[in-house]
Amino acid sequence: MNLEPVLDLNAYLKERKQWIDGAIDRYLPSEEASPQDLFKAMRYSLFAGGKRIRPILCLAAAEAVGRQGRPDSLFPVACALEYIHTYSLIHDDLPAMDNDDYRRGKPTSHKVFGEALAILAGDALLTEAFQLMTRRDLQTDYAPENLLRVIAEIAAAAGSFGMVGGQVDDVQAEGKPGNLDTLHRIHTRKTGAMIVVSLRSGAILAGGTEEDLQALTNYGHKIGLVFQIADDILNIEGDSALLGKNTGSDAARGKMTFPLFMGLENSRQKALSLVEEALGDLEVFDDRAAPLRLLARYFVERKF
Amino acid sequence: MNLEPVLDLNAYLKERKQWIDGAIDRYLPSEEASPQDLFKAMRYSLFAGGKRIRPILCLAAAEAVGRQGRPDSLFPVACALEYIHTYSLIHDDLPAMDNDDYRRGKPTSHKVFGEALAILAGDALLTEAFQLMTRRDLQTDYAPENLLRVIAEIAAAAGSFGMVGGQVDDVQAEGKPGNLDTLHRIHTRKTGAMIVVSLRSGAILAGGTEEDLQALTNYGHKIGLVFQIADDILNIEGDSALLGKNTGSDAARGKMTFPLFMGLENSRQKALSLVEEALGDLEVFDDRAAPLRLLARYFVERKF
Repeated sequence: MNLEPVLDLNAYLKERKQWIDGAIDRYLPSEEASPQDLFKAMRYSLFAGGKRIRPILCLAAAEAVGRQGRPDSLFPVACALEYIHTYSLIHDDLPAMDNDDYRRGKPTSHKVFGEALAILAGDALLTEAFQLMTRRDLQTDYAPENLLRVIAEIAAAAGSFGMVGGQVDDVQAEGKPGNLDTLHRIHTRKTGAMIVVSLRSGAILAGGTEEDLQALTNYGHKIGLVFQIADDILNIEGDSALLGKNTGSDAARGKMTFPLFMGLENSRQKALSLVEEALGDLEVFDDRAAPLRLLARYFVERKF
Repeated sequence: MNLEPVLDLNAYLKERKQWIDGAIDRYLPSEEASPQDLFKAMRYSLFAGGKRIRPILCLAAAEAVGRQGRPDSLFPVACALEYIHTYSLIHDDLPAMDNDDYRRGKPTSHKVFGEALAILAGDALLTEAFQLMTRRDLQTDYAPENLLRVIAEIAAAAGSFGMVGGQVDDVQAEGKPGNLDTLHRIHTRKTGAMIVVSLRSGAILAGGTEEDLQALTNYGHKIGLVFQIADDILNIEGDSALLGKNTGSDAARGKMTFPLFMGLENSRQKALSLVEEALGDLEVFDDRAAPLRLLARYFVERKF
């Protein structure tokens, strides 16, 4: 008889989202600070409905390698990941890039604040992310060497060989014939790298072994892809109201997607088999990896 | 009879510019790396004729507090300052901001590579700056705590209360009646903060005392202002060929400048008296601060 309490993933996600929302609210200067419009723009995008996936992966990875309880001391790093993600969305939405007027059903930053402020709010969020990761109080819990390693890995994942490089590839691929390899490469850089480093950073700070880090890296690559495939599928058959954007927009734009190259059913099967493989990667961990296991399934089953 | 060799500032600047140029060239991936256009754009702006003032201030401050010889181990941090400066120029020049087609006589990044790539090259440079500062080899020479402190201070100077905040103020001030106080506040954030932190970062890593850091901070605030006043004066009466841009452009745009509020002659006097005050701040240092002393005068006498 298994007496272990069954983990309620929704409650788990909700609680962590609240932790992260609260931490971001504390870290951000009030909207009265100067320049007011800059802080308004930063806050607007940080609180525009993000699910806090990257911070939650960071905390869940720390938990998997043995960090118990509410890990307040990890919050600055977890939030830094969300700052970087948010800056990338603001810049991706700009007229010179994807030219999106809405995201998650809300007007994008440049529609609300103008292009100049949107660019600068993105710049500020990226910069503040690094300031968060160098807060003095982090050094009471973590070795400076480990903090430097985490900052180095996050910068690498966010930079020209990671997220920014992937966005360049994405922008340049538009309107050109592509294939599954191109698509795979773009996503590995554009979203995969930050998902992997979200997991690694939590595990590094929580004292994970190199074996733990490798397992999380393998898991992260797979769920990053699952996340993207699910996104592509939702864009075809999801609920516009839940998604906060029109379905069918990828096809209308001629965007490369997994269903375009593999068909809808094969894309679904691919996502499901990646989830199974990702669960295999987690076999080195005990029950403390339960949230990561449920998250893998959640990524393929999510509705928005 | 003073047998001490007189420092030749031009030779000093030239040598350090070569060190920095060489280091940047080594740190940057080759233009064959993928995405090629991104690395081309990063390299283009990094080698568009910058004088390497911030890296040189970093090295000179380390020298003032006692660091002798060619300080190779400081190069990653010195170059990171130049990366951040360069990213800020690329983003400032964008159509949504100052909309400049030329800088130092060369077409700006978005004119050469398009707006999307210019935004992304700026993003990549800012991100890579933090990667440079977390290179493993830095830890053989510097305590991790000091590296974290330097990263924290540089992020603060570059962020929403520093350079980015100053740029927001600058963008928002355009076309509005301003005064000397507004102008002062904009420059303190927009250029002053990075100049001060360039000096502080070199001194922190070279083992400067808190007294040293305070003296350099005071000196930096003043020469930052001197640099800006000189810029404003050059825009009125400089040599367009040497400057690589048309003189009179500030006035044509209705930009706030020191000469606009104080007149040309008072601006010149203000710069000269700030230089004297800055030299006073350096009195805590011995002859090893000679380069910083000459630099203060150079800032007011420069022709481009």
